[in-house]
Amino acid sequence: MGTTSAQAYQELIALSKKASTLTSISYLLGWDQETYMPDAGAKARAEQSSLMAEFIHDAQTAPRIGELIAMCEQDAELVSDQDTITAANIREFRRDYDLATKLPKELVAELAMVGSEAQHIWKEARQKSDFTLFLPSLEKMVQLSRSKAECYGWADDGEIYDALINEYEPATTSSQIQAIFAPLRDELSSFIKQVQADGTPPDTSILDASIPPDAQHRFGLFVINQLGFDLSAGRLDTTTHPFCEGLAPGDTRMTTRYHEERFTDALYGTMHECGHGLYEQGLPKEHFGQPISESISLGIHESQSRMWENLVGRSEAFWTWALPHAQKILGGALKNTDVKTLTNAVNTVSPSFIRVEADESTYNLHIMIRFGIERALISGELACADMPGVWNQQYQELLGVQVPDDRRGCLQDVHWSFGLFGYFPTYCLGNLYASQLWETINQQIPALNDQMATGDFSSLKQWLNQNIHAHGKRYHAGELCEKLTGQSLSSAPLLRHLRSRIAPVYGL
Amino acid sequence: MGTTSAQAYQELIALSKKASTLTSISYLLGWDQETYMPDAGAKARAEQSSLMAEFIHDAQTAPRIGELIAMCEQDAELVSDQDTITAANIREFRRDYDLATKLPKELVAELAMVGSEAQHIWKEARQKSDFTLFLPSLEKMVQLSRSKAECYGWADDGEIYDALINEYEPATTSSQIQAIFAPLRDELSSFIKQVQADGTPPDTSILDASIPPDAQHRFGLFVINQLGFDLSAGRLDTTTHPFCEGLAPGDTRMTTRYHEERFTDALYGTMHECGHGLYEQGLPKEHFGQPISESISLGIHESQSRMWENLVGRSEAFWTWALPHAQKILGGALKNTDVKTLTNAVNTVSPSFIRVEADESTYNLHIMIRFGIERALISGELACADMPGVWNQQYQELLGVQVPDDRRGCLQDVHWSFGLFGYFPTYCLGNLYASQLWETINQQIPALNDQMATGDFSSLKQWLNQNIHAHGKRYHAGELCEKLTGQSLSSAPLLRHLRSRIAPVYGL
Repeated sequence: MGTTSAQAYQELIALSKKASTLTSISYLLGWDQETYMPDAGAKARAEQSSLMAEFIHDAQTAPRIGELIAMCEQDAELVSDQDTITAANIREFRRDYDLATKLPKELVAELAMVGSEAQHIWKEARQKSDFTLFLPSLEKMVQLSRSKAECYGWADDGEIYDALINEYEPATTSSQIQAIFAPLRDELSSFIKQVQADGTPPDTSILDASIPPDAQHRFGLFVINQLGFDLSAGRLDTTTHPFCEGLAPGDTRMTTRYHEERFTDALYGTMHECGHGLYEQGLPKEHFGQPISESISLGIHESQSRMWENLVGRSEAFWTWALPHAQKILGGALKNTDVKTLTNAVNTVSPSFIRVEADESTYNLHIMIRFGIERALISGELACADMPGVWNQQYQELLGVQVPDDRRGCLQDVHWSFGLFGYFPTYCLGNLYASQLWETINQQIPALNDQMATGDFSSLKQWLNQNIHAHGKRYHAGELCEKLTGQSLSSAPLLRHLRSRIAPVYGL
Repeated sequence: MGTTSAQAYQELIALSKKASTLTSISYLLGWDQETYMPDAGAKARAEQSSLMAEFIHDAQTAPRIGELIAMCEQDAELVSDQDTITAANIREFRRDYDLATKLPKELVAELAMVGSEAQHIWKEARQKSDFTLFLPSLEKMVQLSRSKAECYGWADDGEIYDALINEYEPATTSSQIQAIFAPLRDELSSFIKQVQADGTPPDTSILDASIPPDAQHRFGLFVINQLGFDLSAGRLDTTTHPFCEGLAPGDTRMTTRYHEERFTDALYGTMHECGHGLYEQGLPKEHFGQPISESISLGIHESQSRMWENLVGRSEAFWTWALPHAQKILGGALKNTDVKTLTNAVNTVSPSFIRVEADESTYNLHIMIRFGIERALISGELACADMPGVWNQQYQELLGVQVPDDRRGCLQDVHWSFGLFGYFPTYCLGNLYASQLWETINQQIPALNDQMATGDFSSLKQWLNQNIHAHGKRYHAGELCEKLTGQSLSSAPLLRHLRSRIAPVYGL
């Protein structure tokens, strides 16, 4: 007697749970490495991580999984209604299995090896601000990424770069992104130039207050607790490069970093990770191991972090509630400020050439420049050697800034050195989804602004829990956006948000 | 062409390294669970740990390992000189493989299942102080432990309990232990009674000083750094049940706990774990994965912790150096004390019925009572039902205390509930080895006491590194003791130490 499709599905779920449990262990290795691991443990940690990666790869690519998926796919009852958990799981099992098995072992090994080398070379090149040093590595990584894309494949009416986007933002193509980015880029660039030319910059001196890290940490914990992050099912620790890891069911770990100066850096960093953390805590982890318990895409994940960081955290309503608490917890430094001054200060626009220091508005331009460049690199329209010129020219054109050198120009990000092409656009998609969802949320919860001003974030959190988090991977990003907002993703809500937020700050 | 024995040995080392790397990952799971894991992560952690245990078991019991060991054993060149690393490794590979494979799967599963149940029942029984509730579980665990011992086997001139000791203290038998414990028990019991009857107890009020945990933590770090613990290759964190884990090469993690009152509890707890930690840091981790990189036995491990905790930490020389620093770091509470008063206070003798609260002297009697009882339980000389009576009578006889109830009597320790028979004696063996080694060390480093009084612990640490740690598992415990001290283990050095330490404190 053969396996029935129902049995195949159950076996698939068991195998997937095992692979996910192994993955969750490797997350702990990663988290610990960035938080508490002593320096001298690095070598052993690399061996632990590499051994786990082997076990995970074996668990994810077992031929039995391919057989089971095929059995399930043949049963119309299991897959025909795409809205069921089962159908969504099978669709995503297929996607994951294909992604895991389509690349030949040699290519995976080469990507890892060349990527690791290229990262070292990139570090040196950046330090010396010498693009020519990095050029051969970049060329190699572009070429390997093209080979990867060829293995994955893309739609007949699409382009090679789609295959790379698909790793991070499923069911989203370059041309769809381009159609949204093009008007955003033009209008945002004009708006920012107008703000710079005609606006009166707000007083930001309050942000220079010196505040001890431990007070900042206590305030961060106070805020995320109020936003609804469950600290009995998660943590907030300190690290060099902040991140959030949905480590395992009931165990979501966020990190942040503190400097005496610019307490808002840590605060917004923490609120950003908290947005990711609330998403992880809201996913249906009772289905752990199944795609239905996982997040949709990087873009949707980023929409959650950006919503709490920017749409909530930089609003006047937020500071109306938060300022008295900040004054108490952060000590005397904020004593003489008021809600208006502080809100204005955290909503400045300052075009610069460094992405990670960019404000809420200009950030999107940094991303769109990268999107255009990496798309052209992968398609072959742009030669790697010509990249710095295009980079500098675009920064001049869109942000009005003169890139002083490649260190602060096209060598500033690590991503391309290890082959992360197709990742950048998800940062901007996050802002776009956040703004579009925000308009819908405010229509459906008209009192939200007033609630936030009293520190009540529960209806917002509940809305996100019910309408986004609880679905896991049931819908694709675009699909969910349409279902919730009634419209496909567009640049209009983000532009409306930025204009209405920034213009008054600059007296426009 | 078959595998040569040299190839077999290399393959064995590679397989063993893989198993050890997996084990090191499970140590991280355990460490994190006791330190930073949020409560709600417990269920997922149990699944992660259980999956890792499966992988580790598979890696340790692979039939290929048995084949390879057999091949190595047949090559006289590899195994004949027992002093070589290779021969020691092969001997210990055999021991580990036998321990891992001799128990039938069903017995392992039953031990785990019944042990887990029995632990729950023990908790309830202890809480209600109702031994009859725990009796059936104890009987079952004794019976299963006997089955386990039968599978392991023991020497013709030995006894069944030897097979259980062997898990924790290789090459050490019940009768050897008995021969050392018998005089120790009698003489120590008389000495303690004499101290109680004729001595003048020291003033211990200084120990009641209230000291904030964070100051205690800073002082703990200050002390272990001075003792030679490398904090770039290890950590000290807070937990409920302190432990030390040699997590991986370059990564040794200790934990402790703080109470406002009795700052010496945390200090000596930390110095105890530091002794374990220095051993782990001193092992030849360049051979990670091979037995030669591992500690000899629980008894030798405990000798290291007890040496730093008691022989160093409770000495006048230690406090001569440490007190001024304690006064600075721990704040005003210690301002009005002096070295003599403090040293006397930490060397009191107070017979009680609770092991974990026992002082340095009486602790040994607690252990020897347990050793006698568990040996008789396993041999069948003592019925489980009769155990509480024997327990109470021995406490009366040896410590002169009346056990008020089973909660504070034979139900106080968790060990037996999950089948930990043969483990208790290693605590006392640790004290014995520590004292015997200490006499040798002080003969070889006559200036040690003066060095300690100036905070110089480097020659002590170096001696332990060179003479104990660096050897890993090359020698058995007894063998190493004879090599270093010129004598087999005896009760005399511990008795000499305790008499010379305690008598003056009590004016005897």
